[in-house]
Amino acid sequence: MSIAVFYAPNAKDSSYLSEEESFHAIRVLRLKVGVLIHLLDGKGSKFSTKISAIEGKKVAFGNLDLIESEPKPSYTIHLYVAPTKQMERMEWMVEKCGEFGIHGIHFFASKNSERKEIKLQRLEKTAISALKQSKNLYLPKITGLHTFKDVVAKEGEEKLFAFISNPPVGVLSKTATKKANYHVLVGPEGDFTEQESAELKKNKWKPFSLGKSILRTETAGIAVCHGLHILNID
Amino acid sequence: MSIAVFYAPNAKDSSYLSEEESFHAIRVLRLKVGVLIHLLDGKGSKFSTKISAIEGKKVAFGNLDLIESEPKPSYTIHLYVAPTKQMERMEWMVEKCGEFGIHGIHFFASKNSERKEIKLQRLEKTAISALKQSKNLYLPKITGLHTFKDVVAKEGEEKLFAFISNPPVGVLSKTATKKANYHVLVGPEGDFTEQESAELKKNKWKPFSLGKSILRTETAGIAVCHGLHILNID
Repeated sequence: MSIAVFYAPNAKDSSYLSEEESFHAIRVLRLKVGVLIHLLDGKGSKFSTKISAIEGKKVAFGNLDLIESEPKPSYTIHLYVAPTKQMERMEWMVEKCGEFGIHGIHFFASKNSERKEIKLQRLEKTAISALKQSKNLYLPKITGLHTFKDVVAKEGEEKLFAFISNPPVGVLSKTATKKANYHVLVGPEGDFTEQESAELKKNKWKPFSLGKSILRTETAGIAVCHGLHILNID
Repeated sequence: MSIAVFYAPNAKDSSYLSEEESFHAIRVLRLKVGVLIHLLDGKGSKFSTKISAIEGKKVAFGNLDLIESEPKPSYTIHLYVAPTKQMERMEWMVEKCGEFGIHGIHFFASKNSERKEIKLQRLEKTAISALKQSKNLYLPKITGLHTFKDVVAKEGEEKLFAFISNPPVGVLSKTATKKANYHVLVGPEGDFTEQESAELKKNKWKPFSLGKSILRTETAGIAVCHGLHILNID
């Protein structure tokens, strides 16, 4: 059997799994004291340890051995998305971006937005399960709902936004520089309004095209995340 | 209002929409005689025409004007996938590959396959709806379930298979040649068995890596499709 993996953001400072992860260990996987487990802190480290005690509903673990780490990634990806009407599509996007590896997914409301609220907790759960499954080391920060105004005003070294225009602007792989801290905006299904895209350009966001196919919002998000990974393959 | 798009594979030889597309035109969109519509034959052409008559449950259309065409694509992508247990994941993959643009999605059973039958008709519907939404011109052929033996024996100019190995093999963008007719195999969650990957290599399938993250089957399928499009950007 493969070694069970748990998400333990405070692995270094605590010796207990969270209530939820403890439940999973005891009730679902029925693990016992002495069993070897792996912990992901979601901040670049993976540890090996053993269950040292089961105290009621809580699992305690012993000394940590660092078995894998990536203290500082050579590039980071932060995605900003206007959420779709169907929350399911956003969950799916979080799962897929989580599998490819991403550092932040941030939701905002724009003029043509179809949804004015999101379920952050549910999306975080999806991200945690994608983290475990994919063997990535970073759990994306999921935040929102932000205002379009706050997102536009954001400072960052490599700010890009997906833009549908005729004639089309350059594709992502030819617009983005390598090994940067990316902040990438994907608009709503109805795209950004003219005023919104003018504001973005004024605030140094660079437009790019995702090709001639019209992609749904969640597909565009995945394309951005995967495209930036491909761009940064050594 | 934007112009309604219908899938009409025999647009050139017929002057009627299918029963299903007719139903959509009359009952859902409530279109009337004289209305301008667009037709996609799924084989590289897009036409403009008008509804010439509504005869019971069938919509007749008039003369066709070719408004967009891509008679022969400069590369083609055929994906071969061992289907996952949850059919929903395969529907997602068909939808997303359909949005990016793909020419064929073929299902096969391998040793570690989780599913021994698939619902082709349902997947075709998903592909048709992705075709309309994305403004692509080719409807992927969806076939299966094939035997692994038949897939391995397939002749083709650029045959590749996703392979998890240590040390990892080269990534897709460095393994695949440009502007080819691609046939790409994605194995089941448990990966190909040693015997299966040996047979693939013997039959001139080239192994490639999808990077260090462990992707789910449907994510791997999407990564292949999107990755090949990026590789072929001029």
